[in-house]
Parts: sequence; C-alpha cells; structure tokens
Amino acid sequence: MRTRIYNALILTMEEGTEIFAGEVWVEGERITYVGPAGTSCDVTFDKEIDAEGNLIMPSFKNAHTHSAMTFGRNYSDTLKCNEWLNKVIFPMEAKMTEQHVYELSKIAFLEYIVNGITACFDMYYEPQSMSKLAKEYGFRTVLCGAINDFRETPDSIEEAFLKYNSEHDYIAYRLGIHAEYTTSLPILEKMADLVHKYKQPFYTHISETEKEVETCVDKYGKTPTGLFESLGLFDYGGGAFHGVFLTDEDLQIYRDRNLSIVTNPASNLKLASGIAGICKIQELGINLAIGTDGPASNNGLDMFKEMYLTSTLQKLATKDAAACPPGQVVKMATRGGVIAMGLTDCDVLAAGKYADIIMIDLNKPNMQPVNNLENALVYSANPTNISMTMIGGDIKYYKGKLYINEDISELYKRAGRIVKELS
Amino acid sequence: MRTRIYNALILTMEEGTEIFAGEVWVEGERITYVGPAGTSCDVTFDKEIDAEGNLIMPSFKNAHTHSAMTFGRNYSDTLKCNEWLNKVIFPMEAKMTEQHVYELSKIAFLEYIVNGITACFDMYYEPQSMSKLAKEYGFRTVLCGAINDFRETPDSIEEAFLKYNSEHDYIAYRLGIHAEYTTSLPILEKMADLVHKYKQPFYTHISETEKEVETCVDKYGKTPTGLFESLGLFDYGGGAFHGVFLTDEDLQIYRDRNLSIVTNPASNLKLASGIAGICKIQELGINLAIGTDGPASNNGLDMFKEMYLTSTLQKLATKDAAACPPGQVVKMATRGGVIAMGLTDCDVLAAGKYADIIMIDLNKPNMQPVNNLENALVYSANPTNISMTMIGGDIKYYKGKLYINEDISELYKRAGRIVKELS
Repeated sequence: MRTRIYNALILTMEEGTEIFAGEVWVEGERITYVGPAGTSCDVTFDKEIDAEGNLIMPSFKNAHTHSAMTFGRNYSDTLKCNEWLNKVIFPMEAKMTEQHVYELSKIAFLEYIVNGITACFDMYYEPQSMSKLAKEYGFRTVLCGAINDFRETPDSIEEAFLKYNSEHDYIAYRLGIHAEYTTSLPILEKMADLVHKYKQPFYTHISETEKEVETCVDKYGKTPTGLFESLGLFDYGGGAFHGVFLTDEDLQIYRDRNLSIVTNPASNLKLASGIAGICKIQELGINLAIGTDGPASNNGLDMFKEMYLTSTLQKLATKDAAACPPGQVVKMATRGGVIAMGLTDCDVLAAGKYADIIMIDLNKPNMQPVNNLENALVYSANPTNISMTMIGGDIKYYKGKLYINEDISELYKRAGRIVKELS
Repeated sequence: MRTRIYNALILTMEEGTEIFAGEVWVEGERITYVGPAGTSCDVTFDKEIDAEGNLIMPSFKNAHTHSAMTFGRNYSDTLKCNEWLNKVIFPMEAKMTEQHVYELSKIAFLEYIVNGITACFDMYYEPQSMSKLAKEYGFRTVLCGAINDFRETPDSIEEAFLKYNSEHDYIAYRLGIHAEYTTSLPILEKMADLVHKYKQPFYTHISETEKEVETCVDKYGKTPTGLFESLGLFDYGGGAFHGVFLTDEDLQIYRDRNLSIVTNPASNLKLASGIAGICKIQELGINLAIGTDGPASNNGLDMFKEMYLTSTLQKLATKDAAACPPGQVVKMATRGGVIAMGLTDCDVLAAGKYADIIMIDLNKPNMQPVNNLENALVYSANPTNISMTMIGGDIKYYKGKLYINEDISELYKRAGRIVKELS
C-alpha cells in the first residue's frame, strides 16, 4: 500500500526545522519521503490524499493513562483524591473482569484515535485484554506493570514482561509498580531484582500529592524518588508519572539517571493535587512527556487540553505569561512521549520512520486567521481539528469517520451495562 | 416554520428539574412544547429532527468577548499582559477600520456557532459593523460601550446607545467603559450622567490584574469597584468582566447592587493574571456568568474549555476537589449569561422561550459510558460534541455543516490579508 499526502503544511518535529509546504509519502508501515512537492520519481500510489493546505505532523503519544477506567468517567467528581480512590474506584475495580477491561478500554482507544493519539503508556491490570485490543485496533500500546500489595505478584509481573515484549510489534511491556504508598518494601525489593535481572527501566506514580511525599518521608526518611533510587530501581532508567511535588534532590536523580517525567496537568488540577514544576524540569534538560491519566480523573483523553494546561498552568504558577512556550509543549506531547515510553521510529516525520501521522484541520474558525501554528496547536486547537489519524501507515480516522472494525453503538451499550455491574 | 426535535434527553435548566427523555417543539422563533413524547395533538411539522438519544439543552451565552480580536489570535503569546497590550495589540488596533472589524468578527461568530454559543456580550469599537454582522448571521449580540481616553466620546456612546437599542431584536447596547486604568475621571463622571439619564446598567473590565487594583487604590484611595460605586455608575446595576482581584468590600457592592460578575478563566490563566474567587462569589449569591474574553488572549472561543477551567481552577485554588460542582458551572454558562447580558426569554427550555437550543452529541467516545451528564458537560465534553446550534428557531449548524450565507474559504483569505495589513 502506497499513500501520498499532498498539498500539506508539514511540521516534521525534527530539531531546527521550520514548517514548510510539501508532501509525505508512505509505503506499508513507514514513511518513504517528506519534502517539497514536485520531486520527480516513478512512484505510483494506491491512495492520494489532498491535505487541502492543512497541517501534517507526528501524532500525539499519551505517556500515562489507565484506559480501562472509562467506567469511572463522570461517575463521581466531587471527592478528594484519596477518598475518591478508596470509596469509589477501588471497590468498582475489585469487581472488574478481563472482559470488562477489554470492553472499557475500547472506548478509550477510540477516543485516542479521534483525538490524534496513536500510542499509549497504559498502567492497568489484565494485560491479556490490552494486548488483544492493541492487536485488533492496530494501536501502539506500551503496558506498564501495576503491582501493589493487593494485586499482581513479582512472578506475574515477570511472566507478563516476558510474554508481552515478544508478542507483537505494537505491544511492549515495562516494569512498574502502582505507587510507593500502595506497595510494601519486600515487593519493591523484588521489583529491583527484576530491574537488574533484565536491565530494564522502571516506571511508577511518583509524588502526585503532597501527602504521598510526606508519608513516604515519615516512613523511609526519603522521598519516593529517593527511595526508588536507593533501591536501585532506576539503575536502568525509566520515569515518573505525575511528579507534582519533586524536590531539587529528586530532580538531580532524574537528570543524572536520564529519566523521564510524565506530566498530567488535567488530572492534577481536577483532583486538586497541584501544578508540577514543568519550567524547572525543562531547564534541567530532563525529558518531559504528557499523559492524560485515566478517564476517571480527567475526564477526557484530549492532548490539546493537556498541552493547553501544561503551558498555561506554568504561566499561572510562575506569574509569567512568557513561561512554557508552545514549541516546547508540542515536543513533550510527541517526541517526549516516544522517549518516555521507549518507542522507536515514531518521533518525527522523516523517511524510514513509522507513519504515525495526524492531520490538523486549519480550515475551522478556531484556527483562523493562521498566525503562529505551534501557538495555535497549544492554545486554540481542539479535537474538531483532528481530520486524520494514521498508525503505521493505516488510516484509522479520516474526516469524522472511524476505520475500526467495531459496532460502536453496541459497544456503548455494553459499556453502560458494565458500569451497572460494577456499581 | 414548525420543527420537532424528538428522541432526545432534555436538560431544560429550569430550577429543580431533572434530565428526562422527551421532545421539544419550535414554532417560528419560540419553543411551543417541552415534555415527554406521545402528547396527543394535531400539530404538523415542517421539519422533524431525530436527536438519536442525544442531549438537548439551552445554548451557551458568551458573556464577555472582543470578537474582532481574531487578528491577534496566536499572533503573540509570550508577553505579559501590559506589554502585550501596549506593544502588540494597541498598535494593530490603531490601524483597524470598520470593514476589518466586520470581517474579523465573522470568524469569531462562526466559531461561536460551531461551539454552541448563540449570544455574545461584545466590547469593541465600530458598533455599526457588529450590528450589520449580527443581523446578517442572525446572532444575538449585546454590544458594550468601550470608551477610554483614546477612543470614543460620551456623545458617541450616547448616540450608539440610542441607535443600537432600537435597531433590531437581536441587537442591544449597554453602557460601558474599557477600564478604569484607561479612562480618566471626567469621562467616568460623564458616563455616570448617562447611566442616570437613561437609568441603565454599567459594565466594564474590573480588577483583572493585581497591578490594576494597586494603581487604582494609589490614585483614588478606592478599588475600581469602590470607585465606580462612589460615582453612582452601578446605581442601575450592571457588572464586572474578569473580577479576579475583588475585596470583601467589593463583593458586598456586587451583592447589594445585584450586579453580575463575568469570569474569564482561560484568559486570566494564559495572561498569568490569576484565579477569580468563584466559590466565594457563588456563596454570596452573586450572579456569575462566563466569557471567553477575546480570541487574542484565550485563544479559542470554547465554552467547554471555560466551564472546565471555571470548575477545576477553583479546586486547585481551594485545594478541594469537591469545589465548584458542575451543576453550578453549567448554570453560569447559560442562565448566568442571560442575566448578566440583560437578555430575555432565552435562559431555559420552556414553552414561550426563544428557541436558542443546542444538541450535545453523547455518541462520541469522550462522553461514554454515560454517567452524570452535567459532569460530562463540564469535564469531558469538547466542541466535537456540538451537533446542532439553533438561534431563534433557525438551525445555524447541524452535524458539521454551517447554515450561514458565507463563502468561508474566501473569508479566511480576507482575514489573512487583514492581519498582514495590521502588522
């Protein structure tokens, strides 16, 4: 299958490049050409897409989520974080089956696709469900271990690690735990053994709330980051989800270990947790990525909203309207995610890379008049501006139509029934 | 013209009512029936719309904007508020003509319509342009005087007040000034004379930044609200745009005078101004409305974003995830705006009211599974969920298509040329 996307503005996201008018060619899963129109060649195409002057760019990567948690979306939105987890979410999750995870995650995956997201870093249970779904939908899914004192064992994590890293190109599995505050020291030590045995990066929720950090310091005399570092969990890299309350010493560890920090501004805002110190992290040269967190705490899976909040909340926190410029933020939502998730070849638009591409519709009133396009992506764009989502050369969404083999209205009915079963 | 919208979930926004399944009938400009299906009657309809189980509700009212400022959207987003106004916006505005205002406002009006907004409270210059456009597009437009030391005179404001309050049902004109910090005392006193002569409410930007309040207190020994009150400007009601830094004494004036406060969370966030004390204002029973502010400082005209921020920024500011519940916020974006703008008969869905109605598409993944619908409107919805916008019984937007007599791609070209002329 050879596809040509022409009459486009192109943001390759390669360092030091400007937006230019041109075209992108795709053969099979990969990009074969990105450049100006009019290149003479003998290529014939199976499909030609007129971009109508719209913007072609690398897709968004959602670097922290819990896809199956669609069940909790708009279910209860007026509790504090701890109360919400303990009284609403955990009791519902205790009833969830493999089939529930599969069906509920489908809704999130469809939302990712219509919102221009082509890969997710998903921390949840029942990896077999996620793996099945990733293959069926053709969606890049990096699973993250979520062991804690109540679910999974180091053995089940090791088994999943071995299984899901050799199953399919679109599926990977990273070692991880739910969080320090749900996981006892013996389990952390066993996870450190796995990290060393397989020389793998390690990921978890870290310093999402002030209380989490205080409790950890009381218990261990160390911050969560300090504790994980002391156990050797970061010896082969990895990263933190949330990272709202990180100390200067914590940040040195992220820098020295070349770790990533995945920020989740909408979730941190809605749960009244706080604002992460993105400007400082950025200054230290630490890799930043953006995640939506799960649909139960957000409640939308929209990288435009996350980019907007990533930038504007820094302006508020630093009282500086110049803080956290859009160019940096678009990079976090694309290339930063690729690094954090350990993906390969889908960071920029260039020959040889996977064709994980989105088209941004500029011919909608919210993007007009066209001034600075990176500003427009962060401050003006919304999901109405996604007019195409392509993963590995496959068009999954184009001009309002999903190209996924799913009876969507039946799916919605099943999801509604599942919520009743879990309630 | 008789229209029936059936197979709908209906949120009338009447006090004490629940969402129910039913239908809405419209004849000419007004609603004739809202209730369950199956009512026996002899009515025949010219048009029948199957809502497919989606939500029908009153449209959003944008209670503070500067529509023509689309020229500055994504033009310069990295300056502090004062610098941005003085170095970028004011020099461009100085070159603007009546025709520029007309063309640039068209883009904002189209954006309002596709985003489910059917009325705006527009503070700008060249009211003849706005009035022409409001009539052409059939869009409810409340103009707000914007006199300051550089533009307009009390005479021109009085002339506009008399002209635009008797020109067309869809156009009204309220007395107002740009702001205390741009308007000298003699002009304020003349505006107070107009307020008393015509017994009219008064509106202006108030306490948008900390510096504005400090400077005013230094100059007059009063806050902006205190100054306006002492001059009698609020003797017949009115309200404040922004109101980020209001004192307890200020708030007593808003309560005692029955004034409205129009909050603009996205603009205040992006310009690093601060977070308005919505929870406190709400507790005092002061009418709250929501505005997008102009497209140059926001940069989108999207009431979903504003509602999301209105609620979640209160959670952040008060460190309470239960703060500012969605039901209150949806009311601000609809009924609160109607009160602030002095509109009539378009606040709720009921027989006799104007048919200013929107349809919210629930059959998109971001709204699934359907749990609490008011939560979904504030936390999950985005402009992809607007599937119909009706103003005074006229469908302006339906399922992705605008029903406005405009060659939109030509309009975009003209707007692009205007930005070059102003630069």
